[in-house]
Amino acid sequence: MKSYLFAPGPTPVPEKALLRMAAPIIHHREKAFEAVFEEVREGLKYLFQTQQEVLILTSSGTGAMEAAVSNLFSKGEKVLVIRAGKFGERWGELSEAFGLDPVYLDFPWGEPADPARVSEALSSQPDIRGVLIQASETSTGVMHPIQEIAAITSKRDDVVLIVDGITAVGVFPMPMDAWGIDVVITGSQKALMLPPGLAFVSLSEKAWKKAESTDTSTYYFDLKKYLASAGKNQTPYTPAIALVFGLHEILKMIRQEGLEEVFARHHRLADATREAVKAMGLELFPKFSPSDALTAVRVPESIDGLALKKAFLDRYGITVAGGQNQVKGKIIRIAHLGYFDSLDMFQVIAALEMCLYQMGYPVTLGSGLSVLAQKLA
Amino acid sequence: MKSYLFAPGPTPVPEKALLRMAAPIIHHREKAFEAVFEEVREGLKYLFQTQQEVLILTSSGTGAMEAAVSNLFSKGEKVLVIRAGKFGERWGELSEAFGLDPVYLDFPWGEPADPARVSEALSSQPDIRGVLIQASETSTGVMHPIQEIAAITSKRDDVVLIVDGITAVGVFPMPMDAWGIDVVITGSQKALMLPPGLAFVSLSEKAWKKAESTDTSTYYFDLKKYLASAGKNQTPYTPAIALVFGLHEILKMIRQEGLEEVFARHHRLADATREAVKAMGLELFPKFSPSDALTAVRVPESIDGLALKKAFLDRYGITVAGGQNQVKGKIIRIAHLGYFDSLDMFQVIAALEMCLYQMGYPVTLGSGLSVLAQKLA
Repeated sequence: MKSYLFAPGPTPVPEKALLRMAAPIIHHREKAFEAVFEEVREGLKYLFQTQQEVLILTSSGTGAMEAAVSNLFSKGEKVLVIRAGKFGERWGELSEAFGLDPVYLDFPWGEPADPARVSEALSSQPDIRGVLIQASETSTGVMHPIQEIAAITSKRDDVVLIVDGITAVGVFPMPMDAWGIDVVITGSQKALMLPPGLAFVSLSEKAWKKAESTDTSTYYFDLKKYLASAGKNQTPYTPAIALVFGLHEILKMIRQEGLEEVFARHHRLADATREAVKAMGLELFPKFSPSDALTAVRVPESIDGLALKKAFLDRYGITVAGGQNQVKGKIIRIAHLGYFDSLDMFQVIAALEMCLYQMGYPVTLGSGLSVLAQKLA
Repeated sequence: MKSYLFAPGPTPVPEKALLRMAAPIIHHREKAFEAVFEEVREGLKYLFQTQQEVLILTSSGTGAMEAAVSNLFSKGEKVLVIRAGKFGERWGELSEAFGLDPVYLDFPWGEPADPARVSEALSSQPDIRGVLIQASETSTGVMHPIQEIAAITSKRDDVVLIVDGITAVGVFPMPMDAWGIDVVITGSQKALMLPPGLAFVSLSEKAWKKAESTDTSTYYFDLKKYLASAGKNQTPYTPAIALVFGLHEILKMIRQEGLEEVFARHHRLADATREAVKAMGLELFPKFSPSDALTAVRVPESIDGLALKKAFLDRYGITVAGGQNQVKGKIIRIAHLGYFDSLDMFQVIAALEMCLYQMGYPVTLGSGLSVLAQKLA
């Protein structure tokens, strides 16, 4: 059976990048590596829509989240943690692990954050020094209103906005400089279409200034060292060299397609998937503001969600994501970020229709596929 | 021109592993990944010569060094840091970054640590709770006497021995359990013959017990989470999946060759290289106790060390390592760890002879090569 990845990371890797990464390894302290690194730095700035340096860490995305927390805040400092899913909770765990004083602003899973409540929290607690949020909450498929929140935080000299863009960067527009976001993070295995192993983080001038005076213990993730090395087209510690070469290919592909078209393609696929799912009589999990990275679908009450996920894999070789924590078994998540185009979506929607049909759910075969074709024609 | 890697990491990657890593990516929360992970765990225990779990981190080796420091010690705790090169200094930097109270025991670059002085330090300062050392100090090519030091620390219930085995594991014998080492670390891009991006760490029971009561801030490198996940053939955060697949191939190769033969091969190549270099009239940098991972050679006074390193690359496409910090330009380091066999060494010794000859050094062409052939025949 063929295998298909429709999970929100890791995502499929283009053949071009796979082959580039399979080339014999070269030493990272040589000019040949540095020349590639220099182009990669430029490509990342284009992707992040920033003039700032985008630092390359050898870690998962969580490593970059830790780097943001440990470089920007001191013990006891108050931060506003927006929680509306599993990754919002991770910001909270990190804040607690590093001894910050997190104030939680919770929204129900499946809903986006409300900027008015962020504004209220910052007004009523003027000692809050940072806001930690996801742009796309991968566990619920919801997009948070980053532009609106950045408009609030950028008015405050003493508050930084830290955005986990792990399933947002390269998916939908989030121009770091234009919106005034202070820290943007992403990982290699999402819209960057690479295997996991690299994480990326970029800091605004305001963020770098704040990072000067923090007292938290950090070494491997000490971002000042990465910034100093980047200027010499290097990293302070041995980087995941093969992935950097793969990244070089990917960034060329992104530049060739053009960021606007990358965003438009993701939106086209996301919109068509959502409409197809609704046409099958299913309900989207996000009440509104769905992320274009993935479509989270409520599993009908009569269907066992874990069995549905298993049917995708066993019958059609498709890996989709299930729900995590409080929505385990209650949703499935179909990704369309990264190396996906129109025809890919017919495979996963066909599988969804057929799995539900085989499991006894009253779905009209072809109902989702027809709408998909109408939307993508 | 062909390219050759003779630096002490990254080292050449076998074609088998390159191709395995170029296969389409699969999701790490699926059974197919877990089955591979289970075999990898067993292979790592064989390699580390331990019954303990060997944890897999997505980071460079420095990340695993940080994990050891941040998981095993509390702020203010006294540790003995053995410094005899750049990586010994890194233990010191890490200890300071995490607020420990490092006591330094320094040896000249090019010399191994003296176990008697370690013993003295532990006796005279009974509040020392850990000893941090390299097994193979990559910056000088020296092997430290780990067995002797472990014999000292294993008599103390309140002292743990942390060994950076980054250029030691899979190079020469260092049986973790038999010698009573508490923490062993390595990285993917050395004897494990993979691209950089994975690091490995294993803890003795004594080390796990000590890790229970520490107060240092850690999240991404929280080893308790990696241990809990490993039991389920998983990692707490997305691992560098492609590298885990490459590792699967490599561990099969190591098991097929057999650890004893892996060690014997490294010793054979190291011994022959050292004798060849001496036969050319050159001096080894280590006074005694050279590491079998690499041969550090003093650059003759009449020769510019940086120019020699450049000649290797420009004339023969060979990357060797130069000296770092205080020995910059004064030594070159030729690696023979990982995917190397006898015939490889003729290439690098030939290049060394010819480079020196071309630079006007009075070397008899063939002098090193002859000895190499005699040793390896």
